Amino acid sequence: MGIRLKSGFMKKACIVSIGDEILTGQTVDTNASYLSEKLVSIGVPVVSSYTVGDDIESIVKSLKLASSDADLVLATGGLGPTDDDITRQALAKFLGAELELQEELLQEIQDFFTSRGRQMAAKCKVQAYVPAGTKALANNLGTAPGIMAETTRPEPGRTKGKLVIVLPGVPSEVRQMFEESVLPELRSFAGGQAVVIRKLRCFGTGESNIAGLLGDMMQRGRNPLINCTAEYGVITLHIIATAKDRIQAQQMAEKDEKLLRETLGEFIYGTGEQALADVVGEKLAQENKTIAVAESCTGGTLAKLVTDIPGASHYFTHGWITYSNEAKTSELGVPADVIAIYGAVSEQVAEAMAQCARKKAGTDFAIGITGIAGPAGGSEQKPIGLVYISVDSNNGCETKRFVFSHDRSSIRLRAAQTALNMLRLKIYV
Amino acid sequence: MGIRLKSGFMKKACIVSIGDEILTGQTVDTNASYLSEKLVSIGVPVVSSYTVGDDIESIVKSLKLASSDADLVLATGGLGPTDDDITRQALAKFLGAELELQEELLQEIQDFFTSRGRQMAAKCKVQAYVPAGTKALANNLGTAPGIMAETTRPEPGRTKGKLVIVLPGVPSEVRQMFEESVLPELRSFAGGQAVVIRKLRCFGTGESNIAGLLGDMMQRGRNPLINCTAEYGVITLHIIATAKDRIQAQQMAEKDEKLLRETLGEFIYGTGEQALADVVGEKLAQENKTIAVAESCTGGTLAKLVTDIPGASHYFTHGWITYSNEAKTSELGVPADVIAIYGAVSEQVAEAMAQCARKKAGTDFAIGITGIAGPAGGSEQKPIGLVYISVDSNNGCETKRFVFSHDRSSIRLRAAQTALNMLRLKIYV
Repeated sequence: MGIRLKSGFMKKACIVSIGDEILTGQTVDTNASYLSEKLVSIGVPVVSSYTVGDDIESIVKSLKLASSDADLVLATGGLGPTDDDITRQALAKFLGAELELQEELLQEIQDFFTSRGRQMAAKCKVQAYVPAGTKALANNLGTAPGIMAETTRPEPGRTKGKLVIVLPGVPSEVRQMFEESVLPELRSFAGGQAVVIRKLRCFGTGESNIAGLLGDMMQRGRNPLINCTAEYGVITLHIIATAKDRIQAQQMAEKDEKLLRETLGEFIYGTGEQALADVVGEKLAQENKTIAVAESCTGGTLAKLVTDIPGASHYFTHGWITYSNEAKTSELGVPADVIAIYGAVSEQVAEAMAQCARKKAGTDFAIGITGIAGPAGGSEQKPIGLVYISVDSNNGCETKRFVFSHDRSSIRLRAAQTALNMLRLKIYV
Repeated sequence: MGIRLKSGFMKKACIVSIGDEILTGQTVDTNASYLSEKLVSIGVPVVSSYTVGDDIESIVKSLKLASSDADLVLATGGLGPTDDDITRQALAKFLGAELELQEELLQEIQDFFTSRGRQMAAKCKVQAYVPAGTKALANNLGTAPGIMAETTRPEPGRTKGKLVIVLPGVPSEVRQMFEESVLPELRSFAGGQAVVIRKLRCFGTGESNIAGLLGDMMQRGRNPLINCTAEYGVITLHIIATAKDRIQAQQMAEKDEKLLRETLGEFIYGTGEQALADVVGEKLAQENKTIAVAESCTGGTLAKLVTDIPGASHYFTHGWITYSNEAKTSELGVPADVIAIYGAVSEQVAEAMAQCARKKAGTDFAIGITGIAGPAGGSEQKPIGLVYISVDSNNGCETKRFVFSHDRSSIRLRAAQTALNMLRLKIYV
């Protein structure tokens, strides 16, 4: 099952993931899926993907296979400073070129360490070498530059004129380098058909309900194709429109976006990569409103989500993690007898937490969360996953009861996300 | 960087992941890493891994490549009932065999639906077909059986006598079928060698420094092999011992673990999958000590890490997220003039946060964190990534200054982890 793109006369890509740690299963390869999605979004379908260990012959073989499958080869991993990082050497061998020291690169690597008040380890010097005739790609987050090469010299087992780009394996570096260094190089390379992908992000209902509401729109073979992925309650709908040119594809995607918005209404909270905390934060900043949070079972998860967003200090001021009953009373002022009568996990305590937090912080909104994240502490009346969430504002206090499933970490994240969603539905009215 | 296994005279495996949704990046392939780890644990190293779309020719090609790389091919995906699921046909083509209806299988699939009070969709009948001469593998969680084949007939492009196993792509089904149907078949296949993997988790120094300290021990080709992976400051050393039997491999791994512990000392904080918050929490619980946290730039990240651990309520009681200056003063009691004189991001404020938090919460330990997580807000004197962390206890208050690199999210996570590490070094003395 999956997403199929028409790939008639487009340029194609192959992804090569390099690293023993992937082959042994110690690391899940998230770079391949990230790069695939990015490539598809610029109209370059990925036709195959290879994973090999840190072994020169295997890497060379995979680069040969990849460049025979596709016009663009994107490889990650093995550019680090240690002995087992040998992608640099393998690329040189594949290209039939020698490794050359680039003084400029060496300077940049040294500067990287100097600016952090550290000395460059001798081992790092190897990262200033690239195969002759290739181009280094800047890495602002680490010391290993990427390398971009074009296969020009005809040699046995190697196809001519393919673009080969190698990036370090660290996911954050892959992401930043792809956006800043690779994408600009690829824009001209893509050509041919245009693929436009729009993502709509939903919260507050399940995947099967969304599939039911959309019906035929989710049929395979339809263009635009509409697909759906789910993660911790966030459901992402992908509208994938393929057309001869970008404008046409864009129009098709826009038309479907409108249709989906009409059908799904307030389930849709955002687009692209937006998190719930993004759209909530945007609105709060826009309207000059402020928020405080008081958490028990989520233990900081909600505050973390809120402050993950750059500039959160414009609207987020105070957070309390009142994990013990005593902290709920001493720090927030939740009456001890309310806790004694109804229990720490109750509608009344969630409400008091939100109300007290708002009063103490002097904010426009406050959220209170109390629940049982498990794996222990559940009872028949108050099962694991039971969470009360309260949102207080000058329009009064709304408290809801939820029972989330799965494990401790899912329950905590779902509770925090659901709190943000309750706030969203309040501030976007 | 990664993990290398000696693979001289062992049987080897190759993994093939099939599905357009993986190639387009809509789905992260977690089956490959799961299967890799399982195979390595029974002494069958994975030497390569291929990902292809739902396309007969691509699947056949990948099966050929895979069976030339390895003795065992484990493929997943494309066994579903819909039109784009064509792995069954591709396997038949690869084997040079016809698909045959197996009445028994059809009955099982029908029973699967009947037992759930549903009717079998006509499309599901296709799942009762397997290539002639192959064996169906039971699937208790879904309707698609797996298929096990041995390549016996010599044909061009295909190597003789390789074991090819195909499983459906649903991760839960892969896991269950591997444990229940595949593993028993593989025990005899693996034969010979035993592999024991130990993981040591380190914090407080960089990968290159650890490599420097270990020197020759990290040499490729050494047995046990010692490899290292890094994520957000946590460095995991893998000791991979290969021997004729399990006991011998275990002894070799133990000997190396002792050596590593002697060399790296307090950099090693734990084993296996342990997080810093696990070992810190364990010790606090053991010694009946309590902790509170006061966070600014980390905005709840530290509290979340602490409360990620089940049972954290035994030692964690209070947390404050004093994101604004006013909150630092009103909630914790940090003197306003200290903030005015030294700035919110200063040694003095971190110290006051920790001391005030400990006093207010009445705990044995308290941590204060203040810094600049970026992407805005940095200056020459106080750059992005500057973080002061303070740990207060009845032995006094220790405050340290750090400059973390990378992006906002890395800076926040590194700061929170570093705080836990400072606490660890205090409580494990």
